[in-house]
This record gives sequence, C-alpha cells and structure tokens, in this order.
Amino acid sequence: MVEAAAPDIVPSPLTRLQSALARGMFVHARRLLTELPAADVAHLMSSVPPRTRELVWKLIDSSREGDILQHLDDDIRAVFLGRMAPQELAAATRSLDTDDVADLLADLPDDLYREVLRSMDEQNRARVLKALAYPEDTAGGLMNTDTVTVRPDVTVDVVLRYLRLRGELPEATDTLFVVDRDDQFVGTVALSTLVTSQPEELIEDLIEFDVLRIPVDMKDTEVAQLFERRDLVSAPVIDEEGVLIGRITIDDVVDVIREEADSSLKSMGGLDEHEETFGPVLQSARRRTIWLGINMVTALVAALVNNAFEGTLEQLATVAVLLLVVPSMGGAAGNQAVTLTIRGIALGHIEKSNYRWLIGKEIAIGMINGLIMAALLLVVIGLWKSWLLGGVISGALLATMIAANLAGVGIPLLLRHFNLDPALAGNMLLTTVTDIVGLMTFLGLTTLILL
Amino acid sequence: MVEAAAPDIVPSPLTRLQSALARGMFVHARRLLTELPAADVAHLMSSVPPRTRELVWKLIDSSREGDILQHLDDDIRAVFLGRMAPQELAAATRSLDTDDVADLLADLPDDLYREVLRSMDEQNRARVLKALAYPEDTAGGLMNTDTVTVRPDVTVDVVLRYLRLRGELPEATDTLFVVDRDDQFVGTVALSTLVTSQPEELIEDLIEFDVLRIPVDMKDTEVAQLFERRDLVSAPVIDEEGVLIGRITIDDVVDVIREEADSSLKSMGGLDEHEETFGPVLQSARRRTIWLGINMVTALVAALVNNAFEGTLEQLATVAVLLLVVPSMGGAAGNQAVTLTIRGIALGHIEKSNYRWLIGKEIAIGMINGLIMAALLLVVIGLWKSWLLGGVISGALLATMIAANLAGVGIPLLLRHFNLDPALAGNMLLTTVTDIVGLMTFLGLTTLILL
Repeated sequence: MVEAAAPDIVPSPLTRLQSALARGMFVHARRLLTELPAADVAHLMSSVPPRTRELVWKLIDSSREGDILQHLDDDIRAVFLGRMAPQELAAATRSLDTDDVADLLADLPDDLYREVLRSMDEQNRARVLKALAYPEDTAGGLMNTDTVTVRPDVTVDVVLRYLRLRGELPEATDTLFVVDRDDQFVGTVALSTLVTSQPEELIEDLIEFDVLRIPVDMKDTEVAQLFERRDLVSAPVIDEEGVLIGRITIDDVVDVIREEADSSLKSMGGLDEHEETFGPVLQSARRRTIWLGINMVTALVAALVNNAFEGTLEQLATVAVLLLVVPSMGGAAGNQAVTLTIRGIALGHIEKSNYRWLIGKEIAIGMINGLIMAALLLVVIGLWKSWLLGGVISGALLATMIAANLAGVGIPLLLRHFNLDPALAGNMLLTTVTDIVGLMTFLGLTTLILL
Repeated sequence: MVEAAAPDIVPSPLTRLQSALARGMFVHARRLLTELPAADVAHLMSSVPPRTRELVWKLIDSSREGDILQHLDDDIRAVFLGRMAPQELAAATRSLDTDDVADLLADLPDDLYREVLRSMDEQNRARVLKALAYPEDTAGGLMNTDTVTVRPDVTVDVVLRYLRLRGELPEATDTLFVVDRDDQFVGTVALSTLVTSQPEELIEDLIEFDVLRIPVDMKDTEVAQLFERRDLVSAPVIDEEGVLIGRITIDDVVDVIREEADSSLKSMGGLDEHEETFGPVLQSARRRTIWLGINMVTALVAALVNNAFEGTLEQLATVAVLLLVVPSMGGAAGNQAVTLTIRGIALGHIEKSNYRWLIGKEIAIGMINGLIMAALLLVVIGLWKSWLLGGVISGALLATMIAANLAGVGIPLLLRHFNLDPALAGNMLLTTVTDIVGLMTFLGLTTLILL
C-alpha cells in the first residue's frame, strides 16, 4: 500500500534543497548536502529533475562521489560515471565493497573500464577482478570476499586475541566463519555466541553446523527468498568443492528484493525496467513508445474483428453503443488473474504440481463472477435497451470472463514455460485475447440471434 | 522481473510433498515436513490449495505450530488460529518474539484474544500487552523489547563478563545499546567493535553516537526506507523523552518491504490486499467482485457517452469499427504514467516541490508519444478507410493521450492529497477518464467534421 503523505512540519531535505537552489543559495545547499549521509544524497538526486541533478552533483565534495555513486539508480549512475576521469573513478572506488565496485564497473564502456582497472593499485585490482568473474544476478555477484575466518581447534580466548590484533571488522559482520585447513566451510560462530562464552571454550564446541550454504551460482532472487524466509543477516557462499569464497549480507539482499518488486510493478504498467520517475523526458518518451506501439497493434486487431461485423454494426447502432462493455470487463477480470499468477510465480509459490488446481480455480472464479456480472448487466441492458439484447450481451460477458480468467492464469504459465518473463508480455497478450474474445462473442451472438 | 523456472533436477519439497500426499504416504510426508524449517513449511502451505493445506497442518508436530503460524500469510493464519484452543495458542506463543505474538493476537476475535491472554503466564502477558499498546504499522508495532543495554562508564572486560553471565543473546543482536542511569539512549557499541577492543578500554570511548534513533510512532514504511538507505541491521527505538524502549531488526523490516510491494502490485491489478494465489475459490471470487462491479459502472458510463452519439454511430458504421482504438491507447499511456507516479510516491521521491516538473514531464511525453502514435494511426486508417477519418481519429488520439498522461500523474497526486491510497483508486479513476475523453473526442470530432 502506498502511504498518504504526512503533513510536513519540518521542511524535508528535498524542499530545503530545492528552495536553496531556486534562490541561488549554493553555499547553503552545499552545507545541506554535506550533512546528509551518502544514501540520502543519492535519494535526493533521484527526486529531482535531470537539470537540478547536474547542479547537485557539482555541489558534492569529490571525496564522496564514489560512495554516492554506489547508491544511485543504474541509469542516473551511468550519466555521472561517464563524466569522471578514470583516475578519479579508481580513487572513488577504493573505499567501496568489492561487489559494489564490480557493479559500478559493469556499467562502464569497455575502454573506460580497462582504463579504470589500470589506474587501480595491484591489490584493489585483484580484488575487483575476482568479483567481476561472477554474473551480477547470482550469489557470486552479490557476495563480498571480506570474510573473517577462524579454525575449529582454538579457544574463544585465542579468537578474541586474534580479533583484537586484526582490528576493525568488515561492515555487517555478525558471524565468524569456521573453515578447516583446506578452506572447506565447516560452520559459523555468531559474535553473540562468542561474547557469551567462557574464554577457555573451544570454537568447535560452539559451531553452528546447520547453516545455509549458498552455492556461488544461485540466482540472486532465490538468495533473496532464502534470506527472507530464514531471517538471515549474512550467509556464507561456497563453491562446488565446499570451499568458502565469500559472504552475502542482508543490505545487498534488500536491494535485490526492492529491485525485483519494482521491476514487476513496472512490467505490469508497460514500462521499461530502467525508467525512473524523474528521468529525462525524451528518454522516458522513447522507452514508452515500444509498448504503446504494441498496444496500437492490439487495438487495430480488435478493429479488424469489428470490421468483420461491419454489417451488424450498420444495422444496429445500439450494438456499437455497447461495444466497449464486454472487452472492458474481460480486461478487468483477466488483469486480476494475471496479477495474482505473476505474483505467485515471483514468490515461488507456483510449480507444475499445482498448475491444475490453479487453472481450475481461475475458471471457477470466472464462472462465478461471470454469472454475477452477467445477471447485473442483463437487468441494466434489459431495462435500458431490450431484454433480448441484454441476454445476448450477458451471454457474451460470461463466456469472455471465463476465457479472460483462463488466459490470465495460462499466459504467464506458458511464458514461463518458454523461459520468457511472465510480467513483461502477460498484460499485452492478455488484452489481445480478452478484446478479441469479447468482441467476437458479442458481435457473433448479436449477428446470429438479433439479425 | 519474474525469473523463468530453472529445470528441476532434484524434485522440490512442494513436488515431493504433493506426490507423497497423493499416494497416501503420510509418514513420508510428515518426515519431510519435520525436516523443513518453519518458514519453509509456511511457504509450502501458501503453495497448496486449501484442502491440502488442512492436511499439511494435521501432519505438523504441535510443538512447531506457533513458529509456523508466525510465518504464514495473514489470511491463512486466521484460519488455523481460529481452530486452536486458547491454552494451545498461549503455549505456542511462548517462544516467539513479542512483536510477532502481538501480530498473531491482533488477528484473533475479541473473546478468544482475551482468553489467550488469560492463559499466558504473568511475565509473558506483561511483555505482550506492552507490545500491543502500539499500532501494528508503526515502529512501536515492529519493535522488540529484548534490548541488551550497557552503561558508558564500564570497561570492555566488565561487559564481556556480564554477557557471559547473562548467556544467550536475543536473535539478530549485532549491537549493544548504551543508556545512562535514566535509561536515556546514548549510543551503540557494535559487537564487532567489542571483540576487537582491548579489555581495559572504556565503553564510553567506543560508543557510536551518530546512530539513527527511530521514534516509536514512525510509520513502518518510513522505517523500512531508512533501513534500506542506511544499510541497517538493527536500530534503537526511543520515546518522546529519548528513553530507549526497544529495537527493530532487519528481518521484520524485510517483511514490511515485501508486503508493501506486494500490496502495490495487487492494488494495481484490482485485487484485495489479502488475496492469496492459493486462497479458497469462493473467498477470492467475492473479493474480486467489488472491483469488477466498479469496472462495470465505468464501462456503462462509456456506453452512455456512446449513446449520446447514437446518431453518428448509426450513420457511420466505420466509426463503430474503430471505437476501441482511442480508449485503448489512452488506457495504455495513462497506465504508464500512473504506475510511475505510484512507484515514485511509494519510494518517497515525490514531494510538493517537484509536482510541477513531474506534471510538465508527463504532458510533454503525452505530446511526443501522442504525435508519434497519431502519425502511425493516420497512415493506417488513411490507407484502410479514408484520410479524412484518419485525420479525425489521429486528432482524437493525440488529445486523449495528453489527457491520459496528465490524469495518470494527477490522479495519484490528488488522491494522496486527500489521504487516500493512490494505488487503489488510481487505475479505476484513470480508466474512467481515458474512456470518456477518448470516446468524446473521437465521436465528437467525427460528428462535427464527417457528418
């Protein structure tokens, strides 16, 4: 649910920034930006038009650029990445997590990318190259290599001494990973266990063995579902031999969850997955054109169906008056079924073994709601136009609503079967089906019965 | 994006469970359920039809019921909660987090709820009543009261001794909260800092003061945005006096993010926010009827518009043939704008200070894409029917697409202004506007120019 806006008592950072910029108070704006955490600056940049965004970027201290870049949406990031010198970029990436640097570099054109790598120091380059070896949308692409490991045969006291010598731990470290001499992953010891155990206890007596091990090639969306279900904060990533190669932390998983949900919503709305609310006008217009073009074809196919019944339309203008009703209801009913199916697929609820029940359910709902709506329509059209026409349009409505619910569940399942994204094509194909079935049944029945 | 299904090499738990149940192998099914973590059992229960779900519930060990209940979707949970005896329920809740118990109890009918509270032991009841005092959708409703607190004036060594005496820490404890003698929140010390510091160091020298303090009445969606942006694992919740009263952990925040996204998607699809993919047929049918009824009214309003132009439709059957084209394109364009606007509101990108730019953007896109689509349509209809009719329908299309984009951005903003959920009513109102404008312009222009 989208929340209603709370009454603003204190002006938000966005309002303060925009009013400072509008009045030319750049020193004030710069101070405001300096006081905000990097993630909030990135959020502000997503909330302003492109021209204001340029201005904000110029006011940002160059030492914070890398950190802010990391939090920006892909499209906005690409704009500013392209402007930075390779040396600047290499410097900006030094303080970032490996997986975030890899994500940044993956967006660069090839030559710039190579130049940035060349500008890095040896250690940083090795670290980044390792992360780049894994596809972005897998566990390998999500993971960091900054694991803190201990051996099973030492005491708590020894580990504490080691940690004190080591100094600061990587961000979001809540567990130590226990590995044997071959780097084989054995289990974990939570920091909370470590601090509540006696100094003389052995690590091997504290190990949690029943730990979820994430294979390096697992899909990022599957990783997200596992984190969500098991309430994990971090998890070890292992290769095929069971060797520990990294860890995934919840902050990166939260980004996956948000992006996945955002992408589903956009697909359902006929939008490109990269489209931003405050993206440039021409870019947005171009991205939306494709979907509109497809919709035009769909609408013209519907017109072709009507054209086949031009004789009927000529003889009965009342039929033309009611032409939108059945396709509109079919679209609404099908949209409900398609949304629920796409959601079920995304949440991992739908597998082959429950296809049959689900299809049966949607047909049943199509029948039940079809009958209710048909009865209503019969009365309305009966009283308004004629009872015979009411009967014809109600029959067409019932048939169309059943077909719409069947198409609403069947189309996403078929698309998934052929490895296509169910959310992307689902709506478009659905509208085509409901329009054609709706018009054909209504005009066909009218021609047969009323003429 | 919804992922395509990976080829199943090992049968999934769902497939194995369904095949065991189908063949009457209940011992096998029970073993499978026992081996799965509670969250996975809950996920399985969301992936099967209601009747199978009943069977699964009967096979579950009663000691795990509370834990599994906690992970179930609200609607499914309500079914099984209603069946348990109050004593059973009280026992089942003992091992749960306070916030989760409060959520469970909030779903119960009043009399059962009081009986469950009465069946609890003193300590458990006090704990739960405290959590119930806060609305479910605020920081107070999300928080747990199981904070581990320390004083600033002690050494690391003293804290470690205290923790060893205390024993096991609450789940997802990654930081200790530092409070003064009046329970005023001072700051945090991460466990990772504690284990890397020398035993003789003072806590006050290790405190992180720059910590996000969550006010107890903050909206849960706002809490989620903060966690997301600042990459938090846990955060302190304070009351108006700055007293520490609890902490929020990332696992509960992830649930908020997922639910919010799920709810937006469902609203856009014309579904009730509680509707489940594998919900009972009659319940689903009933919940969808309301939206379908509203859509029927919309479609009939469109028919009324057509009715006003019955004379035109009688004289020109070609106009009837093309009747769906303009409303369909208006719907598609408006849907793009409404989706992007609703998403922008949900992500907190849209405030009063950027309304004007956003509305300007959508009008501009309506004009650009309207011109492109109008040109295409002019050619198609010009070649197919007549150039004059092509000109008329193209003009209507351009006007409708601009109006659709304006309505797509304006309707959600207006709804938010009046504290209504933009996602819920957005689509419905939009379709009404695009249908009426589309039909009026097309039929109006035709009547004026062609007759």
